[in-house]
Amino acid sequence: MEYTEAELITIGDEILYGQTLDTNTQWMSVELDKIGIRIVRKTTVGDTEEAILQAFAEAESRAQLVLITGGLGPTPDDLTKPCLARYFHTELVLFQEALDQLTTFFESRGRKLNALNRTQAFLPQGCVMIPNTLGTAPGMWMQREGRVFISMPGVPHEMRKMMEDTILPKITATFQTPVFVHQMVRTVGIPESVLAVKIANWEKSLPDFTKLAYLPSLGQVRLRLTAKGTDKKGLEESVATEISKLKAHIGKYIYGYGEIRLEEAVGNLLKAQGKTIALAESCTGGLISHMITSVSGSSGYFRGSVIPYHNNLKKSLLGVTQEILETQGAVSEATVRQMAEEVRTLLGADIGIATSGIAGPTGATSEKPVGTIWIAVADDKTTQARLLQLTQARDVNIKLTAVAALNLLRQTLSEID
Amino acid sequence: MEYTEAELITIGDEILYGQTLDTNTQWMSVELDKIGIRIVRKTTVGDTEEAILQAFAEAESRAQLVLITGGLGPTPDDLTKPCLARYFHTELVLFQEALDQLTTFFESRGRKLNALNRTQAFLPQGCVMIPNTLGTAPGMWMQREGRVFISMPGVPHEMRKMMEDTILPKITATFQTPVFVHQMVRTVGIPESVLAVKIANWEKSLPDFTKLAYLPSLGQVRLRLTAKGTDKKGLEESVATEISKLKAHIGKYIYGYGEIRLEEAVGNLLKAQGKTIALAESCTGGLISHMITSVSGSSGYFRGSVIPYHNNLKKSLLGVTQEILETQGAVSEATVRQMAEEVRTLLGADIGIATSGIAGPTGATSEKPVGTIWIAVADDKTTQARLLQLTQARDVNIKLTAVAALNLLRQTLSEID
Repeated sequence: MEYTEAELITIGDEILYGQTLDTNTQWMSVELDKIGIRIVRKTTVGDTEEAILQAFAEAESRAQLVLITGGLGPTPDDLTKPCLARYFHTELVLFQEALDQLTTFFESRGRKLNALNRTQAFLPQGCVMIPNTLGTAPGMWMQREGRVFISMPGVPHEMRKMMEDTILPKITATFQTPVFVHQMVRTVGIPESVLAVKIANWEKSLPDFTKLAYLPSLGQVRLRLTAKGTDKKGLEESVATEISKLKAHIGKYIYGYGEIRLEEAVGNLLKAQGKTIALAESCTGGLISHMITSVSGSSGYFRGSVIPYHNNLKKSLLGVTQEILETQGAVSEATVRQMAEEVRTLLGADIGIATSGIAGPTGATSEKPVGTIWIAVADDKTTQARLLQLTQARDVNIKLTAVAALNLLRQTLSEID
Repeated sequence: MEYTEAELITIGDEILYGQTLDTNTQWMSVELDKIGIRIVRKTTVGDTEEAILQAFAEAESRAQLVLITGGLGPTPDDLTKPCLARYFHTELVLFQEALDQLTTFFESRGRKLNALNRTQAFLPQGCVMIPNTLGTAPGMWMQREGRVFISMPGVPHEMRKMMEDTILPKITATFQTPVFVHQMVRTVGIPESVLAVKIANWEKSLPDFTKLAYLPSLGQVRLRLTAKGTDKKGLEESVATEISKLKAHIGKYIYGYGEIRLEEAVGNLLKAQGKTIALAESCTGGLISHMITSVSGSSGYFRGSVIPYHNNLKKSLLGVTQEILETQGAVSEATVRQMAEEVRTLLGADIGIATSGIAGPTGATSEKPVGTIWIAVADDKTTQARLLQLTQARDVNIKLTAVAALNLLRQTLSEID
């Protein structure tokens, strides 16, 4: 079966000029992939009629399905609807259903519909309106000669809800889709090139219909296996077999499969073992706690944290001794061990995790350059500490430290050396 | 003067299929804009020779400058270099300078160059090599008939360093650039449509050569003014005049201009007033502390935080009374006020900030639905608290609460009602 090819068009000067980060197309890609739609191109154009119409025509020449985000706001720089109307040789007309929903939306928030908001109920004649339950701009589904154009607002949570509730099911009902089986293997604590050497022979032995991609990010490398064919069950079995072979080579670096994040995988280990954690974050400044609490249900294993950013608080809150701070310094193995042990006791957790280091760009000494960072994990039996020697960049150092600390916690829970 | 138009091409299945979020093109857009290069399109294609070559040809037909990221890794799915060689009718040859830098890079890390890494020293004949001081894949500058192609690694911090050190200066030296004056006005605490009504008359009175764009994000709206012409000084004066008129309408919502983030603006206020802060973050789980400490120099005003995620810690660490927890609950005005006041005292700060709420999706009660969140700011004179009624989405609620708490702190410091 031929698969359905889709293109994504993002409209907006704010994306083109970089004032806003586009997170929509990533999310859309993942969701479309799950239903067997193949994204072949992503294009971003600005708020000009010429560029938008050109992008529509090019996408239609290549793909059966064109998904558009952005340019649906109430202000005059929003051009997607007039462009869609022109491209489909129609005009904008009042959709009573859209006006009713808009009125309800405003009333439920105790606000009045103004004239600008009212323009959002005008849509291209002949389109299918897609309800927007979280905002004011409805979506649109337009179809001609086997080609479908879908227009959605650029506000991420509005777009996502619209996709989940209406658009993804409607795509599945409209297009025939092929069989892809993807599996993502998530590793932490091993550099890409070392990993590549370790699994080179395994990679060479993969079947022809299976493709491998390396996806590195800070401190992590994900491996994506994609098998393509017609028999879903057969492909799934083949991928599962290849992954079990892979585990023999690099099992201890694998923390999970699919969409799971490291903080979720660690949370699952904690839940399974009935253990709780507490953190003393100095140089990471709250990032690890934020990552952990971004996971729903984390209140079951996360007791809380102390962020003793000022050195006095390392003493007054966590009982790090004046002697250690003076002789070894706040960025030292002795300090980070005490922090991990003390926060564990103070917050009544099974495991304490601590970070202390020089994230930069200031704070370096001749013995401790920027990027010198200590992490520790303490349980009721032992305390393990690691020295990290990282980069010059503050944000990179904070993120790499968070990943390394979560990995040290994972290794402790999994009893990996 | 005609401005120089540029297109950005991102290469990689991982971006196309959504396994990796593209943050590179946003950063590049901002930096190129600063030197007067106009981005006209961004395109993402996958790891196939056909798609890459098509994207090269299309970009070259429209723009003088084509910036490419991705596809330079050491593994076989990285196709950018062979495609560039083919597109420029040349071949890949060993660059001794690249090999030397690669060898030094590995030696300095106590690692050995393997055969895979060695392939990274092969570049298209005739290209100008761009050194990569943070990684293993060099960049390339290729030029023919007034068109320039630049290829960079997709690893964000490597790409950025390469742009800053070599590519941006080389672009400025190669192309003549026009005069744009951009100014960004950053607001917080007012919805886009309310803002639009408040400034409608001001917007209508803007000169013809000046364009306004609304850039909403969670809890914030940025307004971007762009003036285009030939006389830089005149444009800057005109934009400054328009902005001073704007301030008369919405001054109290403006926290800054340009690239400044809310957490930096608040940090600057704290520095200027010589005040320190401490946080008690419950439902925000560390995000506010992370935002604050992402700013270099924050150790000058940030004492630290307590994250009393478990209710017992609200009592044991912050002295919230059992009576209040039982009668009002952990998510209540009384609790959040006590938290802000106690953390201020406990951590020895001038100002205490606290959050407590139901981020969701679990934890709701009949009286307190998901999205019910209290924030408070306490100084030596008064404590102010606000009730937020937010959305169903956990991540959105956490982020909106962080913005609202930073804004309440900003209002306190600026003495805005």
